[in-house]
Amino acid sequence: MNNHAQQQPRYSGIATFMRCPYQPSLAEVDIALIGVPFDGGVTNRTGTRHGPREIRNQSSLMRSVNQTTGVAPFEMCRVADVGDALPESPFELEASHRSIQAFFEKVVSAGALPISAGGDHSISLPILRALAKDGPLALVHFDAHCDTGDNYLGSKFHHGSPFKIAVEEGLIDPHKTIQIGIRGSVNNSEIWRFSHDSGMRVIYMDEFYELGVQGVIDEIRQLVGDTPAYVTFDVDALDPAYAVGTGTPEVGGYSSFEALKMIRGLAGMNVVGGDVVEVSPPFDPTGSTALVGATVMFELICIAAQALEQRQKAALAEA
Amino acid sequence: MNNHAQQQPRYSGIATFMRCPYQPSLAEVDIALIGVPFDGGVTNRTGTRHGPREIRNQSSLMRSVNQTTGVAPFEMCRVADVGDALPESPFELEASHRSIQAFFEKVVSAGALPISAGGDHSISLPILRALAKDGPLALVHFDAHCDTGDNYLGSKFHHGSPFKIAVEEGLIDPHKTIQIGIRGSVNNSEIWRFSHDSGMRVIYMDEFYELGVQGVIDEIRQLVGDTPAYVTFDVDALDPAYAVGTGTPEVGGYSSFEALKMIRGLAGMNVVGGDVVEVSPPFDPTGSTALVGATVMFELICIAAQALEQRQKAALAEA
Amino acid sequence: MNNHAQQQPRYSGIATFMRCPYQPSLAEVDIALIGVPFDGGVTNRTGTRHGPREIRNQSSLMRSVNQTTGVAPFEMCRVADVGDALPESPFELEASHRSIQAFFEKVVSAGALPISAGGDHSISLPILRALAKDGPLALVHFDAHCDTGDNYLGSKFHHGSPFKIAVEEGLIDPHKTIQIGIRGSVNNSEIWRFSHDSGMRVIYMDEFYELGVQGVIDEIRQLVGDTPAYVTFDVDALDPAYAVGTGTPEVGGYSSFEALKMIRGLAGMNVVGGDVVEVSPPFDPTGSTALVGATVMFELICIAAQALEQRQKAALAEA
Amino acid sequence: MNNHAQQQPRYSGIATFMRCPYQPSLAEVDIALIGVPFDGGVTNRTGTRHGPREIRNQSSLMRSVNQTTGVAPFEMCRVADVGDALPESPFELEASHRSIQAFFEKVVSAGALPISAGGDHSISLPILRALAKDGPLALVHFDAHCDTGDNYLGSKFHHGSPFKIAVEEGLIDPHKTIQIGIRGSVNNSEIWRFSHDSGMRVIYMDEFYELGVQGVIDEIRQLVGDTPAYVTFDVDALDPAYAVGTGTPEVGGYSSFEALKMIRGLAGMNVVGGDVVEVSPPFDPTGSTALVGATVMFELICIAAQALEQRQKAALAEA
Amino acid sequence: MNNHAQQQPRYSGIATFMRCPYQPSLAEVDIALIGVPFDGGVTNRTGTRHGPREIRNQSSLMRSVNQTTGVAPFEMCRVADVGDALPESPFELEASHRSIQAFFEKVVSAGALPISAGGDHSISLPILRALAKDGPLALVHFDAHCDTGDNYLGSKFHHGSPFKIAVEEGLIDPHKTIQIGIRGSVNNSEIWRFSHDSGMRVIYMDEFYELGVQGVIDEIRQLVGDTPAYVTFDVDALDPAYAVGTGTPEVGGYSSFEALKMIRGLAGMNVVGGDVVEVSPPFDPTGSTALVGATVMFELICIAAQALEQRQKAALAEA
Amino acid sequence: MNNHAQQQPRYSGIATFMRCPYQPSLAEVDIALIGVPFDGGVTNRTGTRHGPREIRNQSSLMRSVNQTTGVAPFEMCRVADVGDALPESPFELEASHRSIQAFFEKVVSAGALPISAGGDHSISLPILRALAKDGPLALVHFDAHCDTGDNYLGSKFHHGSPFKIAVEEGLIDPHKTIQIGIRGSVNNSEIWRFSHDSGMRVIYMDEFYELGVQGVIDEIRQLVGDTPAYVTFDVDALDPAYAVGTGTPEVGGYSSFEALKMIRGLAGMNVVGGDVVEVSPPFDPTGSTALVGATVMFELICIAAQALEQRQKAALAEA
Repeated sequence: MNNHAQQQPRYSGIATFMRCPYQPSLAEVDIALIGVPFDGGVTNRTGTRHGPREIRNQSSLMRSVNQTTGVAPFEMCRVADVGDALPESPFELEASHRSIQAFFEKVVSAGALPISAGGDHSISLPILRALAKDGPLALVHFDAHCDTGDNYLGSKFHHGSPFKIAVEEGLIDPHKTIQIGIRGSVNNSEIWRFSHDSGMRVIYMDEFYELGVQGVIDEIRQLVGDTPAYVTFDVDALDPAYAVGTGTPEVGGYSSFEALKMIRGLAGMNVVGGDVVEVSPPFDPTGSTALVGATVMFELICIAAQALEQRQKAALAEA
Repeated sequence: MNNHAQQQPRYSGIATFMRCPYQPSLAEVDIALIGVPFDGGVTNRTGTRHGPREIRNQSSLMRSVNQTTGVAPFEMCRVADVGDALPESPFELEASHRSIQAFFEKVVSAGALPISAGGDHSISLPILRALAKDGPLALVHFDAHCDTGDNYLGSKFHHGSPFKIAVEEGLIDPHKTIQIGIRGSVNNSEIWRFSHDSGMRVIYMDEFYELGVQGVIDEIRQLVGDTPAYVTFDVDALDPAYAVGTGTPEVGGYSSFEALKMIRGLAGMNVVGGDVVEVSPPFDPTGSTALVGATVMFELICIAAQALEQRQKAALAEA
Repeated sequence: MNNHAQQQPRYSGIATFMRCPYQPSLAEVDIALIGVPFDGGVTNRTGTRHGPREIRNQSSLMRSVNQTTGVAPFEMCRVADVGDALPESPFELEASHRSIQAFFEKVVSAGALPISAGGDHSISLPILRALAKDGPLALVHFDAHCDTGDNYLGSKFHHGSPFKIAVEEGLIDPHKTIQIGIRGSVNNSEIWRFSHDSGMRVIYMDEFYELGVQGVIDEIRQLVGDTPAYVTFDVDALDPAYAVGTGTPEVGGYSSFEALKMIRGLAGMNVVGGDVVEVSPPFDPTGSTALVGATVMFELICIAAQALEQRQKAALAEA
Repeated sequence: MNNHAQQQPRYSGIATFMRCPYQPSLAEVDIALIGVPFDGGVTNRTGTRHGPREIRNQSSLMRSVNQTTGVAPFEMCRVADVGDALPESPFELEASHRSIQAFFEKVVSAGALPISAGGDHSISLPILRALAKDGPLALVHFDAHCDTGDNYLGSKFHHGSPFKIAVEEGLIDPHKTIQIGIRGSVNNSEIWRFSHDSGMRVIYMDEFYELGVQGVIDEIRQLVGDTPAYVTFDVDALDPAYAVGTGTPEVGGYSSFEALKMIRGLAGMNVVGGDVVEVSPPFDPTGSTALVGATVMFELICIAAQALEQRQKAALAEA
Repeated sequence: MNNHAQQQPRYSGIATFMRCPYQPSLAEVDIALIGVPFDGGVTNRTGTRHGPREIRNQSSLMRSVNQTTGVAPFEMCRVADVGDALPESPFELEASHRSIQAFFEKVVSAGALPISAGGDHSISLPILRALAKDGPLALVHFDAHCDTGDNYLGSKFHHGSPFKIAVEEGLIDPHKTIQIGIRGSVNNSEIWRFSHDSGMRVIYMDEFYELGVQGVIDEIRQLVGDTPAYVTFDVDALDPAYAVGTGTPEVGGYSSFEALKMIRGLAGMNVVGGDVVEVSPPFDPTGSTALVGATVMFELICIAAQALEQRQKAALAEA
Repeated sequence: MNNHAQQQPRYSGIATFMRCPYQPSLAEVDIALIGVPFDGGVTNRTGTRHGPREIRNQSSLMRSVNQTTGVAPFEMCRVADVGDALPESPFELEASHRSIQAFFEKVVSAGALPISAGGDHSISLPILRALAKDGPLALVHFDAHCDTGDNYLGSKFHHGSPFKIAVEEGLIDPHKTIQIGIRGSVNNSEIWRFSHDSGMRVIYMDEFYELGVQGVIDEIRQLVGDTPAYVTFDVDALDPAYAVGTGTPEVGGYSSFEALKMIRGLAGMNVVGGDVVEVSPPFDPTGSTALVGATVMFELICIAAQALEQRQKAALAEA
């Protein structure tokens, strides 16, 4: 499954994630790149349903080797674009989540590690439901919002609550959950209380700059250890200067460089999946947010490839 | 309720529809201007939830007198912006429709004629439910699509079906329904069959140019007569050159001039309400689609004011 | 003064009007192309101060021969970009007008015919003051608005009134003034009363389509005859589909094709100057309005070149 | 090869032309949809290399049945996206043309009829070289420019000359070539002389409106008869109001509706291929030009499907 | 005066500042949010007259509690949108300033603390005239420019000079004035000489990074002490990456995070008013500059609420 | 050659670089500002051919004195816009390079120091060919890419290879070449091997932040010493937040402030020329990338003026 497409002019050809082969059959795939074009859980500006398409488009700017870490994921494992997890009833939030979950269960059954592009943040819930079959996962969560809120406008499954429900359903371990980049005004001062009460580590922006990027990485690694971990990246974690094309921008976030450095800092962790969410092309006239999304996705692929390699080595050593 | 705001610089002040007074109490209102920021019924590109805000903003370019017809609606009756019909459960299509309907029922009870700005086209259904209490209405329907389709993706209440349901529920009389501007490719050749089978008059674009604008007006007036009539204007009726900011644009529509002329041609009809829908600001970088929407809304206000005046005169004559 | 620049790639070089030589000295110029970057007379959205720059930029798409009429203006006479008529006190409307007038008086003294790019429509007033030294001119006026209004917000010299003042000052003959494309809502039904009372010919959009383009041309020619005539083109005469980048767009105008055809229909008239105004680049993200402005300007140059040639012939014949 | 993808939400999945299956093998394809991402022949603004990607993206808005004509191309024949004809040496114009030609020769050998999306207009030359193996074709050419110019800036193979070369190489019959929509200024009055001298029928915009759309269709059909015909559609044929995203816009063209009607008027002709060129996404912020391009492409597919059906019937009748 | 509107979907309803109640009567208002849609003092690109509208629109993204400081301004005091300070003669700079001053005098008389959104920076002058009735104020001034220049183009009241005049009129104390973020090229090296000569503290960008944000805060607090202070925030203080939509951008400024942190650092100071100016929507296609403006305005409201609370406590203690 | 244009409103007049006089004759010019509108060497997104025009336009925001360093370049020497280095055969990469080289040889012969605006990065090669007549130059190279790659798509002269060829031709000394800002994914891990093997100093982004801006400046100065040096600035060196309008953006670069500080840190070095390249206006809707480009160009002019002054002093001292 070498990737000749990456050698062609970047504006040419069908736009798949990273110009990887399109493999909807899921056969012989180690890392499955998946679009989840669903934004039915959004509380304000929509448009992330168009995220997968535009991230695919911009991801043609990505190449095959990570220059900083030397990781060459497409040589280390078989990476394919397996298409979109379609919400079969897009007008119903919970039914949509069920069909997304079913798609990811198939991916997991096929033995592939999923790296996804959203869609709104509510999609992480059905993904976690598919992934956390053997017990709660650790969660590395980049975001401006804790997304551990309560019911809103009559629903508890919207994009501001997935990680509260994930704890309640035993999908993630709050003591191994870390949320990085929280900021902005809130509707009530208790809105993220669940994060604190359940034992999550919440790093607000002021503390972020006190710790520094390396300090944050150290905390993540210490907290998560070798627990199987899911990495979720909401582009609104970044300052709007870096990612204006999102539904709920919050002024005062970190930079793209700081984000990439943090993800690279996860190398060697026991990553079992990841997503980049909340890229909203209608609010992104230059495509730069989708480009950041594609770049984050590439870094996620790299640390996933490293995790796969490590698990293979461990399995070999054990055998 | 004179409208001093219209004498101030147009970029100034709070943006209400036509710079009319903001009157959420509904007291002393003859024509109620209403936003319906709901796009939960959309099958492709969303964003019309932002329509009312941007139409309000662009409507500051409107002034007080219709130069073509001489109608001065704000002198003829009391016109106010009464705020938004909010979907209380925006994550549920049918529940949203119920709360929209409830809002319009209050407007009707208060004795006001509603002119609305959407939102997606599914909102016409709850509006008609609130308006058609005394029997089916006639419908003058400007659109690229008949919107009389069947279930789609598990729902029958989406923005491609309101007028089929409206017939089924006895809200509109299909024999007094005329659909103008139909075109584009379709998913199956039977998709608008309901329009034809139920007896609606469907004017496709080719026939539109054969009849000419005056011919179309003549047909509308003959068909509708003095039946109480609702006028619904989907901006995708216009060619994308005139209204690019919409969710389902179809190349090959009529011009703004032709549209305005048709609406003016309805003067004297027994209009009981109207809406302009499917303006999607995220796809409208210049605001020109919202400007067209505001202009159409102004014309709807004018023919509504004429209808009110006529009904008052008739009532006086009768008394 | 041949124009080699027009043979180079169109994206290259300093941007002058039509890639003509830059000749601020006014020496040896028959037709002077002038920018008037002033928008201090605007009542709503500004930005036309940037019009000359962007029209210069887009005018690189123009070439040397008018394919429809065969006119080759740059061979028939010496055409140069003579720079900008700068308002010396841009914070004062009347002082600005005085400095604009002074610039055009120099142009006229140098024997050049001015074709200008605005700027807002108020600039036509100082231009007419410079040109109409020998008695009132005829005026061919393309616009959505009559611009014959009264005081507004404490000033009578804004962009909605120049032609009322021009009549009052004897600069134009209202009986030889024709206004084409009038439409839109108005603040009071008497706002353009001056046009009618003074004897101007006002063609509203409905009548425009009744007459047809040729009918309008016939009226213009009959009305103006061989009186020295000024041609002023406000881009808001066009429908916003053709010219969205302007301060006061009015839905329902004519097309670019119809406009070009009307200007070409003025060939042979005794044109003494012309302008294209109200191109507002900040509201014109694609540059298409500036392109239309540049195209109109090219057509004005062509009919000016024809007028010059005709006057030369007449002078020779007389001699 | 049914097309289930067309039943899914239009924003979902990999973007292929018309959401057709991706079939780079060329096996079992009747109509091959091809991207030609090459703009090395452009004389001014580039960007059409991005045309195929964005036309693919916007073509998701197309559906399966032509509502006007009733043609259902995807049921009548096997239509597939076969990928891009890549210029192997994009820095060399002639070498690029050779590799494009080679791609189309493979398509023709595989028995498929090619409908392409450019790219600049120079690509029609290598396509014609691949198609016109059995003698010169008729050419139906929609454009603002004749594209029969001479050398420019040291090359004769640029996007302003393909049809002169095509005549010289015997690929098209000038007496069966018709060019529709010509307008704009020109660098010298002789620039399109080759069109006239060689016997092409050139319809300038003024004559276009004199003839009317039906008159133009009649001329095309009479001129071409049943000669194998190629249809080439440069989006700059349209007025910039309808297609601003192109490299060489010319103010004053026809409308989208008129264009679609003309293409539909070719139904029953012996079409052997077609292209839509000069869509330049960097100059098309709303995507509306790519949408028009996709719509034109759909109409070309429809008349191609009709031609294929007709040839099959003729072959059967003969057998 | 609780603010239920903040609980509704953020895209809904009339757009007021922070979705606060609209209270043009000024009755029962502690903090008055005011738009000043005036840009007649601008020396280059205009458009800030549209600032208040778009800041109102984007401010719907703000919520009720400041997550960083815990301040809940809408519970601490009565905050209302009191409408716009309209320039009654927008064509005259000084007359406009007089009517703006009159508006703010009414606000001050009504006992409300004004937080404003401009408009260009010239508006701070009439605001200071209304506020500094009891002696010169301290000034905390975030900007890329000192705005203490001389006459320009015939006027001394433009947006590059308000603080020179404010010193001359005794409205601010130069020894308690601090200007933060100064940079960019200048027309002459003496242009900001007045700042230095009068004793203002000027922090250029190089020194800004030497001091660090906390160092700057320390200087501000030491300099101002408990003198009544006005805070003025010109968005061009920020790097264009964070605030491109402004008239005079200067490359090389600080980040949004750094700005928010500095404003929060003013908590406890004796703030008597504040403004955010120079947001120019026509140059801000994504709305991100207006969003930053709204966020800065929210922080100003928070420190104003704290100041009000403190003064109430002091008054109580004294009583 | 004083520069009165800089005293006029910045939106007015012909757009030349820094509003300097237009001097195509090259007479009496110390620093020649040159546009190189060529993007034929681009491997992905084009559009930099429009860079010079838009940098000229945005450079009107520049003024005459560098506030940070006090340098007043237009007083220290004669600076002029000398027009564009036109590629005479834009369809041929190598021929284009030859004509660019010829233009710069004329500039050098005329005794002027060239500061250029591209154009893609391939243009630095012909410029270096013109400048390095007396032996290899030192090179200070700001970029996300080393641009020392091999053949790509059949050509070795594209924008990813100029500095490899420059070393091979003896135009630059690799041991006095420093490349700052390298990052992003690569097609193979050996792609920039030439940089390392030839002895260039390559500073990747991680190291950049370890060294800090001052550390980088120190390295540059130590490495280059007083060798004649060329400074080349690819705007993709900056993070896309600061410079989105470029063909090959790479997420994770430095800020504008850091870039300006580094260039100012070169003051006193023996600069013989410089360029800013890869500004691509079609991808820069707000013009902010062109503004950064213009600002960088201004800083380059300042250090060039300092170098000229120093060389004059040295020459005087020697004499």
